Amino acid sequence: MSISVLVAGGAGFIGSHLVDRLLRRSDVERIEIVDNLWTGRRENLSHIDDPRVSLTIQDIERADLGRYDEIYHLASPATPLSYMAEPVRTISANVCGAIHMLRALKPGGLICYTSTSEVYGDAEVSPQPESYRGSVDCTGPRASYDESKRCTEALLLEASRVHGVRVKIARVFNTFGPRTRPDDGRAVSNFIAQALRGEPLTVYGDGQQTRCWGYVDDIVDALERFFWRDGVEFPGPLNIGNDRQISVADVARYIAANYGGQAGVNFLPPVPQDPDNRLPDLALARAHLAGWRCQVSYEEGIDRTVEWFRRELAATCDPRSGLHRVGGIV
Amino acid sequence: MSISVLVAGGAGFIGSHLVDRLLRRSDVERIEIVDNLWTGRRENLSHIDDPRVSLTIQDIERADLGRYDEIYHLASPATPLSYMAEPVRTISANVCGAIHMLRALKPGGLICYTSTSEVYGDAEVSPQPESYRGSVDCTGPRASYDESKRCTEALLLEASRVHGVRVKIARVFNTFGPRTRPDDGRAVSNFIAQALRGEPLTVYGDGQQTRCWGYVDDIVDALERFFWRDGVEFPGPLNIGNDRQISVADVARYIAANYGGQAGVNFLPPVPQDPDNRLPDLALARAHLAGWRCQVSYEEGIDRTVEWFRRELAATCDPRSGLHRVGGIV
Repeated sequence: MSISVLVAGGAGFIGSHLVDRLLRRSDVERIEIVDNLWTGRRENLSHIDDPRVSLTIQDIERADLGRYDEIYHLASPATPLSYMAEPVRTISANVCGAIHMLRALKPGGLICYTSTSEVYGDAEVSPQPESYRGSVDCTGPRASYDESKRCTEALLLEASRVHGVRVKIARVFNTFGPRTRPDDGRAVSNFIAQALRGEPLTVYGDGQQTRCWGYVDDIVDALERFFWRDGVEFPGPLNIGNDRQISVADVARYIAANYGGQAGVNFLPPVPQDPDNRLPDLALARAHLAGWRCQVSYEEGIDRTVEWFRRELAATCDPRSGLHRVGGIV
Repeated sequence: MSISVLVAGGAGFIGSHLVDRLLRRSDVERIEIVDNLWTGRRENLSHIDDPRVSLTIQDIERADLGRYDEIYHLASPATPLSYMAEPVRTISANVCGAIHMLRALKPGGLICYTSTSEVYGDAEVSPQPESYRGSVDCTGPRASYDESKRCTEALLLEASRVHGVRVKIARVFNTFGPRTRPDDGRAVSNFIAQALRGEPLTVYGDGQQTRCWGYVDDIVDALERFFWRDGVEFPGPLNIGNDRQISVADVARYIAANYGGQAGVNFLPPVPQDPDNRLPDLALARAHLAGWRCQVSYEEGIDRTVEWFRRELAATCDPRSGLHRVGGIV
């Protein structure tokens, strides 16, 4: 029990689930979470009551850091609504954040980064293997996210090549589940929030664009195995996602039918440069993470997420609810 | 006469030529050059004796900056020898440097960035128009340069879209001429330095890879026109280069024949991921920079560069030489 850990973005959707997994480790002595709560939420950590954990509200690239054996870099908004509104801040968090954290790594330490399927841009091959170089418009409105993820991958892999830093890079595909923000602008969140409010579900474009919806427990399982549990030496990049393709329209219809009452589905014009396919080639993931596969069906994942959204919306209406506790953290 | 200007990387090869052009402007009141002299050289500015100019030796991303009407961001190494040795520093200079400089821009000010043809990576189309998304391996050994240039383009264009910052981005193709470092590892510099030392010229690969060698006066002409002289409103990215293709072997043979004595040309194995073609599509440049074209032939450009290298090498042997003066600058 001597490992010191930094989780940047640990109050975020995936970050907070990763913190839960880290807390299962008996060798971890302390977990310092740095999160500016731009898209992360204090409530995502409110169930934690563990003296090993601390939370600092701060931009990661400006934070006063200690020295760590392991650093997990999840400090980035992940939805277009956020990164398109504050692109400079997005790039700063990813790239300058990574540079800042490299200096906080103990000799021999490990830095892990959650990159994204968006490094493939509007992919011309499907499924996308890690070797595919991508088709990203670096002048487009999504470029702050895509290019800062690509640049941070380059940064860490080059730091590994030149300075011998131990790095691991996961390219995370679409993920959904409890602790997504109801207002994050992403399809599943939108659909569920709309259904629970009794509004029509909004689909951008014709809905035939597919997504490989990974339920968060399956995705974080893979991250845990890759980053520390399965003794993987491969630095990545490693695709992590669900390779079952479901169309946006199918998800909308499932949610409308089961939770939407009578309001139905509305089709609106497509958003700019919305990628029309995303499908992970999981050959490398299967080779390195023996036995791992996504186990939660999208229907079951949605059912669990709706349950969480319901509790969340109830909690928002009731300030005494446990969901707004801050636990042992602050 | 009231314009305040910052030139990051102003002691570099192209940067110092751009400073010479800025000094021709009567509306420029002061030019602050920030350069860490990593690949720039104080000697590149030693001919300047103008009270408007000051030089600060500092990393741009850490420099104490004033407030400027115009900022020119040329702070980056440009040769694989340099950026592959210090990839983190390369990314920091480009990306974090740009973020830092955005804060130093006066309201309504203009920030100009010299990006690179390397954003196209190992191009699958030739010539490369600005709309080509490129084929860059973000996990490869050249990625620190290519990806930091792409990311900085994204940063500035997104800052323009969201915050209304005035930006101009030039994608500069291969450039050669006086003030290249004899030790910069690039083909023309290598060949000339080898020829003048009486050594065989070293070609990596079979030499059939082509380059569009732009002579620095022609390239800086285009930059000057784009950035301030021709009243261009287009933010770019704008390709700037020579679209006459010459093979590396042809250049080697020209230098060997005219300056190399008896030593000849040696062919060695190729360097990793050396792009095998680079050719700018100049349609946009011709549309925006009326009448501009590269006027110096590669033979004449080489002749002028050899002259400069000869004086430079002579100066290195004679510490009293004017080439090592620092002029009015420091």
